[in-house]
Amino acid sequence: MFYTDNKLQFPVRVERPNPLFARALQQAIGGVEGEIRVAMQYMFQAWGARGDPKYRDLLLNTAAEELGHIEMLATAVALNLEGAPLSMQEEVSADPVGGAVLNGINMRNLLSAGLSAMPVDSDGVPFDMSHIYASGNIAADMSANVTAESTGRILAVRLHNLTDDPGMKEMLKYLIARDTMHQNQWLAAIEELGGHEGAFPIPNSHPQEEENQDFSYAFLGFQNDGSEPPQGRWSEGRSIDGNDRFSSRPMEPLGEEPDLGRAKPNSGAQTEQL
Amino acid sequence: MFYTDNKLQFPVRVERPNPLFARALQQAIGGVEGEIRVAMQYMFQAWGARGDPKYRDLLLNTAAEELGHIEMLATAVALNLEGAPLSMQEEVSADPVGGAVLNGINMRNLLSAGLSAMPVDSDGVPFDMSHIYASGNIAADMSANVTAESTGRILAVRLHNLTDDPGMKEMLKYLIARDTMHQNQWLAAIEELGGHEGAFPIPNSHPQEEENQDFSYAFLGFQNDGSEPPQGRWSEGRSIDGNDRFSSRPMEPLGEEPDLGRAKPNSGAQTEQL
Amino acid sequence: MFYTDNKLQFPVRVERPNPLFARALQQAIGGVEGEIRVAMQYMFQAWGARGDPKYRDLLLNTAAEELGHIEMLATAVALNLEGAPLSMQEEVSADPVGGAVLNGINMRNLLSAGLSAMPVDSDGVPFDMSHIYASGNIAADMSANVTAESTGRILAVRLHNLTDDPGMKEMLKYLIARDTMHQNQWLAAIEELGGHEGAFPIPNSHPQEEENQDFSYAFLGFQNDGSEPPQGRWSEGRSIDGNDRFSSRPMEPLGEEPDLGRAKPNSGAQTEQL
Amino acid sequence: MFYTDNKLQFPVRVERPNPLFARALQQAIGGVEGEIRVAMQYMFQAWGARGDPKYRDLLLNTAAEELGHIEMLATAVALNLEGAPLSMQEEVSADPVGGAVLNGINMRNLLSAGLSAMPVDSDGVPFDMSHIYASGNIAADMSANVTAESTGRILAVRLHNLTDDPGMKEMLKYLIARDTMHQNQWLAAIEELGGHEGAFPIPNSHPQEEENQDFSYAFLGFQNDGSEPPQGRWSEGRSIDGNDRFSSRPMEPLGEEPDLGRAKPNSGAQTEQL
Amino acid sequence: MFYTDNKLQFPVRVERPNPLFARALQQAIGGVEGEIRVAMQYMFQAWGARGDPKYRDLLLNTAAEELGHIEMLATAVALNLEGAPLSMQEEVSADPVGGAVLNGINMRNLLSAGLSAMPVDSDGVPFDMSHIYASGNIAADMSANVTAESTGRILAVRLHNLTDDPGMKEMLKYLIARDTMHQNQWLAAIEELGGHEGAFPIPNSHPQEEENQDFSYAFLGFQNDGSEPPQGRWSEGRSIDGNDRFSSRPMEPLGEEPDLGRAKPNSGAQTEQL
Amino acid sequence: MFYTDNKLQFPVRVERPNPLFARALQQAIGGVEGEIRVAMQYMFQAWGARGDPKYRDLLLNTAAEELGHIEMLATAVALNLEGAPLSMQEEVSADPVGGAVLNGINMRNLLSAGLSAMPVDSDGVPFDMSHIYASGNIAADMSANVTAESTGRILAVRLHNLTDDPGMKEMLKYLIARDTMHQNQWLAAIEELGGHEGAFPIPNSHPQEEENQDFSYAFLGFQNDGSEPPQGRWSEGRSIDGNDRFSSRPMEPLGEEPDLGRAKPNSGAQTEQL
Repeated sequence: MFYTDNKLQFPVRVERPNPLFARALQQAIGGVEGEIRVAMQYMFQAWGARGDPKYRDLLLNTAAEELGHIEMLATAVALNLEGAPLSMQEEVSADPVGGAVLNGINMRNLLSAGLSAMPVDSDGVPFDMSHIYASGNIAADMSANVTAESTGRILAVRLHNLTDDPGMKEMLKYLIARDTMHQNQWLAAIEELGGHEGAFPIPNSHPQEEENQDFSYAFLGFQNDGSEPPQGRWSEGRSIDGNDRFSSRPMEPLGEEPDLGRAKPNSGAQTEQL
Repeated sequence: MFYTDNKLQFPVRVERPNPLFARALQQAIGGVEGEIRVAMQYMFQAWGARGDPKYRDLLLNTAAEELGHIEMLATAVALNLEGAPLSMQEEVSADPVGGAVLNGINMRNLLSAGLSAMPVDSDGVPFDMSHIYASGNIAADMSANVTAESTGRILAVRLHNLTDDPGMKEMLKYLIARDTMHQNQWLAAIEELGGHEGAFPIPNSHPQEEENQDFSYAFLGFQNDGSEPPQGRWSEGRSIDGNDRFSSRPMEPLGEEPDLGRAKPNSGAQTEQL
Repeated sequence: MFYTDNKLQFPVRVERPNPLFARALQQAIGGVEGEIRVAMQYMFQAWGARGDPKYRDLLLNTAAEELGHIEMLATAVALNLEGAPLSMQEEVSADPVGGAVLNGINMRNLLSAGLSAMPVDSDGVPFDMSHIYASGNIAADMSANVTAESTGRILAVRLHNLTDDPGMKEMLKYLIARDTMHQNQWLAAIEELGGHEGAFPIPNSHPQEEENQDFSYAFLGFQNDGSEPPQGRWSEGRSIDGNDRFSSRPMEPLGEEPDLGRAKPNSGAQTEQL
Repeated sequence: MFYTDNKLQFPVRVERPNPLFARALQQAIGGVEGEIRVAMQYMFQAWGARGDPKYRDLLLNTAAEELGHIEMLATAVALNLEGAPLSMQEEVSADPVGGAVLNGINMRNLLSAGLSAMPVDSDGVPFDMSHIYASGNIAADMSANVTAESTGRILAVRLHNLTDDPGMKEMLKYLIARDTMHQNQWLAAIEELGGHEGAFPIPNSHPQEEENQDFSYAFLGFQNDGSEPPQGRWSEGRSIDGNDRFSSRPMEPLGEEPDLGRAKPNSGAQTEQL
Repeated sequence: MFYTDNKLQFPVRVERPNPLFARALQQAIGGVEGEIRVAMQYMFQAWGARGDPKYRDLLLNTAAEELGHIEMLATAVALNLEGAPLSMQEEVSADPVGGAVLNGINMRNLLSAGLSAMPVDSDGVPFDMSHIYASGNIAADMSANVTAESTGRILAVRLHNLTDDPGMKEMLKYLIARDTMHQNQWLAAIEELGGHEGAFPIPNSHPQEEENQDFSYAFLGFQNDGSEPPQGRWSEGRSIDGNDRFSSRPMEPLGEEPDLGRAKPNSGAQTEQL
Repeated sequence: MFYTDNKLQFPVRVERPNPLFARALQQAIGGVEGEIRVAMQYMFQAWGARGDPKYRDLLLNTAAEELGHIEMLATAVALNLEGAPLSMQEEVSADPVGGAVLNGINMRNLLSAGLSAMPVDSDGVPFDMSHIYASGNIAADMSANVTAESTGRILAVRLHNLTDDPGMKEMLKYLIARDTMHQNQWLAAIEELGGHEGAFPIPNSHPQEEENQDFSYAFLGFQNDGSEPPQGRWSEGRSIDGNDRFSSRPMEPLGEEPDLGRAKPNSGAQTEQL
């Protein structure tokens, strides 16, 4: 069950409204690297968590935090849109960055939302929930969360570098710090689950005798001329999961050209295929 | 540039065609955990890779491999669909698992593809390319790849456990092994990039002085009663990136209730909002 | 800012796990009539609300409630999936409703989520945020909310009628009641905004002199034979917004066949079009 | 069955082609507030209408009208695109609003459609039919239609305020008037179905004894500090459906923390979860 | 402008309602091979047609026909759904094809539409308007229409073969005949535009001197071993557009390995990439 | 199975990086007319091909070629993005075409991909695999391929006309030539399958006695006034498939107004519908 106090987790202040930056901020709301994604992902992971309940609680707490981040960013978008013109006549004097404001704005922020935020990315594409990874495997979930917070922090850094508004920079410094923590937090959960040598290969519950072990630690090359693929940590030394040693070799086909045979009558194929 | 030899990377053999299993296999083709995703993800990461070119080549080789995996799975889907009825009359005798085959089939494999594979998941939802994560940051990309191969191996394990066809089990044992390697391979790339203490927080090029360091390593609680959130490796000890120590505390709002003021005239709001 | 206490708003109890009903319940999570939709819709309406702040607070409170409803339903889905088979061998004995369980299940609940809920509808289609209506006009938002709760209650009633599990029926009776309140609640907000005669036509801030008033209250017919369209409350008497009287007439074209002229050279048209 | 006369319902005239306004107009074609949505929604509601056939005919007539509105808008888009440059060289002299035209254009109107309209919104996102609400419940359908025409009129008003082209203003005044009528028309249908006290709660066929009536008319608060949520018409007085009186109270969890137990073996979870 | 007479273009009769066949029919409504697609495609092609106006009129007439086909199919879906159970208790006796009806039904036809048709395909995926091809080039549009009617007729044939209901077979025989005509009709339009030798390569307005003519009629092989690709009409003889002769050869890379250089500072890359 | 040599099929050279042109090029990568589409379409057609195996090999070879085209275009996008500013400060001096660069850029190329290509179109909409047509009918597939290469060449021509960069023009001249060949190549395959008179109507395996032959070659008019629709090659002379002669006539409804009757109790309808 969830509660609110209607307040912002961190102050949101815009000194010079910039509708173009509003469009950029939309990515942090409704982009695949954004806050809707992590909020909903942590919730669904929590609601499907089996085993030690501490992971459920950990996930729900951070999900609640992320809801507050969407709120901050939505407020920031609305404040940045204050400067957008509502008519072609207003347009002339409204230009903050040297181009036509209406050209650069996400037009639906005006036409659909009346100068407010939307659950879309910076190109106006709505967020879709296929990006919520909740696998029923706690280690895979944590790995997905590290990835989400990594791309999330990259996005926040790019937004921070893009703007020159002091209020916006302050808000983004806060969000960047939270992404630092969240990367570390989910890595810490993986460590608690055994780290590289205990948790991998994911899922660690599948007995490795039931995989084709000739290929479990071989880096395979697919160079056209049969040459060795690029060498590195992945082609020699102990495997990261500690279960074997890496090797490397060019791959050759082990199967033949497949033949599906003739089409069935009544299957809608051409007569030539029957 | 890419080439083909028209052959299968590994033999694909189906002893007892099962249209329901064909539907399940579709998830490994067009699901978010599937092979189209990794093939295209590794390509786009390669084509946007800046810095040491070995990562580009590494990615392209494994992308080529994954194309061959889609091919294997598409062949397996078509072979499993051999048993599907094409008319209500055929239906009665075609039931392999005790229920009506047409109920369980992905009907578009019949209606749209004529008993062949499609780039959709096991519910018939087409794969969409928003799932291709290629961030322009090599460490984030590698982290995304570990995640992709983790959910990929979970899926392959679930498919392996679901089927009782020996040919299908053999194919899946091969794919599980390759996912083992690929998880290790991308983890190895992260190690080469500095591992937890060198690569994190991602992006490592952003100076941490430019984040709000009061919040960079604090696990924040959002329990309704202000109590401590669940403790664990994430709330004490050295941070995983090695840059500080974890702490933990309940969070309180630092901002006020936001006020967007009145709506602008001509903005399509109600009169009461102006 | 948001908080959690990790508990359920209302008890969720499943006496006889039914994976087919789990699939049906998914519609109430990730369907367009479902709870993700209302939770996110009320949030975005709140975050874009201008004018009297009480609407912001009203919306946030109910948004928080809806988050708890997703939680209840996600728990119900996971509990109903307990009965799903994980292999073809299990399948035979697992059938609760006379057909093959795997035929009827949403297969991704097994393959992608490991027997847990997902943010998808009962056909496995992920919820997408284009369904979040937050228009920047408080009356239109309230109207959208009445609609959402109407289709929401219809769905809950259909689910209630579908199941025969006492625990599930109890949970749904609670959700149906909440939908009753929420329909009334948003209608009450419209009343507070002036009701039919004060709030309509939406937006009420646009002066009706600036619309083509010959057509503002005329029910137009498009019957092929030029006959009168079906008559009713919409074709006579005072208009519902109280501003005029309804009339009715067949429509005839006021414009000519449009002519876009020739295509421009270099526009990629055929030579014949230039 | 449908017919055409190839003519426009209302004249479409553009004095000064403005490719940026073409992009804005796309929202009225393929946006969720647009004309494709209402045309298709009214059709599917008609085709699923059970009970009194007059609603079917009413819906089909207005659906036919909306098809003509798409036609008008598509023509307006094509005429506004006349001013768009087809090469970087043309670009310099083609700028109507002080910025670079190609920056502000929806580039697919040029690249995919050769300076014609597309069934996409003003950000280029294609309309998708999940927005067609046809519930099988006539009152819910009418409520959805009021909502659609409310957001539709808001959009038309915003477009009207945005443009300074006399021809475009005239066309939009016509469309605004039609939206006025259509809001009233669907409200009239609700009145004919019993109005607030007869039609609500939707569906009115579900006996209210079969809902948890302790919660049917209570406005519940989810403030973090347990305080009362904002009061208004929704918290006191007779309910809008006339069936009871509103009350108000803070909500507390009635359920416990859910526990899904251990994961099943063979479910692809981590060993720690089994 | 469009009109209706509320009648069906062809009688729709269902002798034995079959909810599973209702699901199959959905593909002909909202699938990519379905009737919404052609109706909307022909409209948008008409509205963007430049040059000889007869193509606009031709397209609008056939668009009007296709609207009537959606209507027929939607009626057929609703009639077939009459047999679907609304509760688990009804389920037992409702089974027409030997399996559990609810397993095979598209569940949203019940839960969202109350036993009516929806604008979705047979897997419940909503039609999306990105499938409307209207290129601004009349020959490409006609080619797209031949393709649409080809896949449309294949689908109708598969549906015809699937059902054993006499009424449904009659309806489908009508639709198959119309697809025969429409394939021929669009091919006839291409003939009128010059046929293979006049209309191709599309667009025929681009001077072939402005393409790299060394590669305009060469069938290139990408076999891994450098061998010749499969020979056929495409590798020898006069080209179909009549402008040259086919040849065939294995391809070799003409470019080098690309090098994007180092990442820019402030671009969110890892330090190692800068 | 697939291989790579890491090299470009054709040199990619950008003299004057233009971020706006990068956005335009995205259409050729992730647009419906783009290279991902053809690459994946040819693969899935190959993997589902039944009958003569030469079509499988033909398709795989050209699929491999198209993968190399995506690679070329992705490289071109990254090189054109070199000129994009990463901060508002940079913005002022970065403008290549007279407007603000950030206004015209696809912002996700910066925010999500760090100045690299993405699998999205020029409006930032991700490619989705529903556009992969692989019908199980070889003639329909070839027809779909002609269409894809027709819209592909139109797009390449428009891009060629848009840019003034010599390197980009050279790359596009190459791609235009390949589209010329591919149009011819798939037309040649149709010729080999019997041409218009042998392959049509598709599927040619359905006996025409099993269609309603009164309507197989009649061009039907849907003019509101019952007048003849536009005449042309489609209304007289021998049908293109050679099986009959065209005729033409206005259409009248053959069915009545449909009546779905009353709604079922428990179906969630209003009481008035029962």
